[in-house]
Amino acid sequence: MNSEILKSRIRSVADWPQKGIVFRDITPVLEDGEVFQFLIDEMAKFCQEEEIDKIIGIDARGFILASVLAYKLKTGLAIVRKKGKLPYTTISQKYTLEYASETLEMHQDAVKKGERILLVDDLLATGGTMKATVDIVRKLGGTIVGILFFIELKNLKGREKLKGYKIKSLVEF
Amino acid sequence: MNSEILKSRIRSVADWPQKGIVFRDITPVLEDGEVFQFLIDEMAKFCQEEEIDKIIGIDARGFILASVLAYKLKTGLAIVRKKGKLPYTTISQKYTLEYASETLEMHQDAVKKGERILLVDDLLATGGTMKATVDIVRKLGGTIVGILFFIELKNLKGREKLKGYKIKSLVEF
Repeated sequence: MNSEILKSRIRSVADWPQKGIVFRDITPVLEDGEVFQFLIDEMAKFCQEEEIDKIIGIDARGFILASVLAYKLKTGLAIVRKKGKLPYTTISQKYTLEYASETLEMHQDAVKKGERILLVDDLLATGGTMKATVDIVRKLGGTIVGILFFIELKNLKGREKLKGYKIKSLVEF
Repeated sequence: MNSEILKSRIRSVADWPQKGIVFRDITPVLEDGEVFQFLIDEMAKFCQEEEIDKIIGIDARGFILASVLAYKLKTGLAIVRKKGKLPYTTISQKYTLEYASETLEMHQDAVKKGERILLVDDLLATGGTMKATVDIVRKLGGTIVGILFFIELKNLKGREKLKGYKIKSLVEF
């Protein structure tokens, strides 16, 4: 198996969630056990060079990849959620999307000062969500050792918002 | 390590999301790598007796546990989401909560006829969400071989909605 299979299994859905957008649907990749294994093992290769204390997954598809990597690498898992989903004391970060603003939250005790953190999400688009996550983790005193995506939409230039960090994506569109 | 540690690490948050509710917060369990390993390994024991083709996780905390189990057991992973989150053709199921109704959706091709399915979520409360998931999987022709939860709130009697299925929860409140 090679990374071509990952790209070939991503389903492109036209005009979703709105006209003119091609949505990259990862569910067919997850549904095939062998391809899912391969995806996670490929993502884990990126992590081998780093010592990681905790992996952070972003609500909600990011949870899928981050949790498996945390289990495989025997690290802790922390989650970043959309506003209003976390029950305990949170730290929050607002960020702007093209025509709206969103707020992400994390429990204030989810990252300890000095912990070595890997950030994981399924998709890098404009980078706004990941940048907000970076800001939260830095406020909590975490050290970001890398940022890992399954898919990157190159033309949206999300990397420009994440300059200075080690970034990897497995599949580009 | 034993299952007492799992219960002891769950954080009880009073009056969330509304007055009079004690919310059981699993994030401290996930954040400790060793305890997270133990949780998943304990959940996986329940799966050993069954032949499983696919594991289904429910939006959003269910994704965390279902995805790791799917990876560990080398099965496919499918997801059930709240209305409006899935891009492709879906099948949906409405269900009622105490004072409202919700709709769950799944891609219509996420479960194939005759597949042996394990359903996973973090919490069994009234059972409404899981019952809606059962209904969707049955409509798609899947065979449900078991239903697995981390936590069960016994006094809400969720099991009564799920009669006839093999159900396991690791921790009870």
